[in-house]
Amino acid sequence: MVPAKEVMVGVDMGGTSLRALVVNAQNEILAIEKTPTNVALKPEGLIRELALMVEDVVRSVGLRKSQLRAVSIGAPGAVDPEHGVVYHAPNLAGWDEVPLGAMLGKLLRVPVFVENDVNVGVAGEHALGAGQGTQELVGIFVGTGIGGGIISRGQLYLGSRGAAAEVGHMIVQVDGPLCGCGSHGCIEALASRTAMERDVREAIRAGQKSCVLKLMEERGKDRMTSSIIQRAIRKGDPVMRKVMKRAQYFLGMAVASVVNLLDPECVVMGGGIAERLGEYFVAPIRKTAYENFLRRHDADRVKIVPGSLGDNAGPLGAVVLARKRLEK
Amino acid sequence: MVPAKEVMVGVDMGGTSLRALVVNAQNEILAIEKTPTNVALKPEGLIRELALMVEDVVRSVGLRKSQLRAVSIGAPGAVDPEHGVVYHAPNLAGWDEVPLGAMLGKLLRVPVFVENDVNVGVAGEHALGAGQGTQELVGIFVGTGIGGGIISRGQLYLGSRGAAAEVGHMIVQVDGPLCGCGSHGCIEALASRTAMERDVREAIRAGQKSCVLKLMEERGKDRMTSSIIQRAIRKGDPVMRKVMKRAQYFLGMAVASVVNLLDPECVVMGGGIAERLGEYFVAPIRKTAYENFLRRHDADRVKIVPGSLGDNAGPLGAVVLARKRLEK
Repeated sequence: MVPAKEVMVGVDMGGTSLRALVVNAQNEILAIEKTPTNVALKPEGLIRELALMVEDVVRSVGLRKSQLRAVSIGAPGAVDPEHGVVYHAPNLAGWDEVPLGAMLGKLLRVPVFVENDVNVGVAGEHALGAGQGTQELVGIFVGTGIGGGIISRGQLYLGSRGAAAEVGHMIVQVDGPLCGCGSHGCIEALASRTAMERDVREAIRAGQKSCVLKLMEERGKDRMTSSIIQRAIRKGDPVMRKVMKRAQYFLGMAVASVVNLLDPECVVMGGGIAERLGEYFVAPIRKTAYENFLRRHDADRVKIVPGSLGDNAGPLGAVVLARKRLEK
Repeated sequence: MVPAKEVMVGVDMGGTSLRALVVNAQNEILAIEKTPTNVALKPEGLIRELALMVEDVVRSVGLRKSQLRAVSIGAPGAVDPEHGVVYHAPNLAGWDEVPLGAMLGKLLRVPVFVENDVNVGVAGEHALGAGQGTQELVGIFVGTGIGGGIISRGQLYLGSRGAAAEVGHMIVQVDGPLCGCGSHGCIEALASRTAMERDVREAIRAGQKSCVLKLMEERGKDRMTSSIIQRAIRKGDPVMRKVMKRAQYFLGMAVASVVNLLDPECVVMGGGIAERLGEYFVAPIRKTAYENFLRRHDADRVKIVPGSLGDNAGPLGAVVLARKRLEK
């Protein structure tokens, strides 16, 4: 029997899917539930779905929602953790200044915390994953975009405007491709999954042979997902391999820049590609980074590793951060 | 009459000149002494010169060295502040693993502190200069190279190996010119005084008209110093202006990267060029940076300003850091 009021639910609210974990006081996962995000719903509707999902996953371990200590959500976009407000979520239509914490709290009648989705992922890898035991850590999550988080002196570093750790918008090639942010040559515009897909499609248009589009068709995907990338790499697709190699080079240079600036103990590479490809993805990034650190004689004191928690990093980190807030 | 045991001496030990300040408990400057660095001397000889200089500047305010609270030195290169050791100073021949603190302390019989020269400059601007009152600050010093310092939560941030804040080795153009560190496209290789001189000489070799070499000859300089840059800009030299504009653009992009990563309250641009040209130097850097922040709606909450202490930033910062160490 799980002691009541020790159990928390961590949620990752993504543009593609919702993921909820029930976690005990030792941060062990008791249950996992996952469902596609119904993006057609307005915020109120999606929040009702979230409430039902939380009740459901809690019931699956034999508890009632009233026995929950708290719910903590990693939400995309600009988030105000102090007030539980999602200011703007680019992947969720209509999510502008939504008081997610208050609204979900009213439905569930438990404390609800809201944090940025990348920050919770980094906090998870720091507390329970590949970055355990470090005081200074940088997390880099490569997906549709490239997000990041900084742990300094053991705590999330948010910056003076709460705008820190935008690793994806480090500029590594001032005359490089246009980024979604309006600048040129941000690492996100060179090495995100979106950038890789652009480069693959360009190579195919230029007449290079690749199985990527066929794989996407077979799997019914209109985007080059991490699983498509993994399959294409396994098949030895030359275009995919070349594009991946280039992205890894740019990521290695970005990691070198970050390390020259912050000198962390550990850089955790997270996100779908890192999760699926692991060391195959990270090894070339590490090599390029080590070769371009200013201080090379003890380069290997800076660990560069894939995340170890996969999709659970976010919900687990959300729980860890909520626990810290409750202890304050 | 100055109360004894409250007075400290701050020293900037540069490859070109030594600068010593006598400072009272309110961090007011009571006396300044400056002398060229005799680079022909071995470490022992230079440390003896430092000792004489300290005695001299203290005597000039009517005190004896025994009445000093401490001496604090900003030294170039890799420094271990805990043990007062200069590990390696690229601009000073023979300075490898020199126990500067212990050696000078033995001669003067007062506590001697040793810090990195860029860190003391940033600490000075933070405590007493353009960055006063901020908790999160980045200092960028443009000179022969480009150095930097990070203040986080009000304190110098040193990183896990003591190798943090190497702003000069942020990579902003992966296929850019070779840097002294062996990488390509570091901001130091694009916008330091050395990089600007390289670009000016290249333009002149390519047949462009410029007065820079003539100015250097007239003033007996074999390097393009900050004063030469200032004169050439004032004369409207087209090559100098074009090279400066390009350097400012790259610096603006580097500042954007730093701010996207660290979101400080303030970026202080220091060093000889910033000191001489002030707002003329910083305004275009600020403009480019603001245009390339990820978060632009409140870009101007991040102040980007020239340093206000000039050559005194280092010695004053050295004193401020020594005071913190004495209080511990």
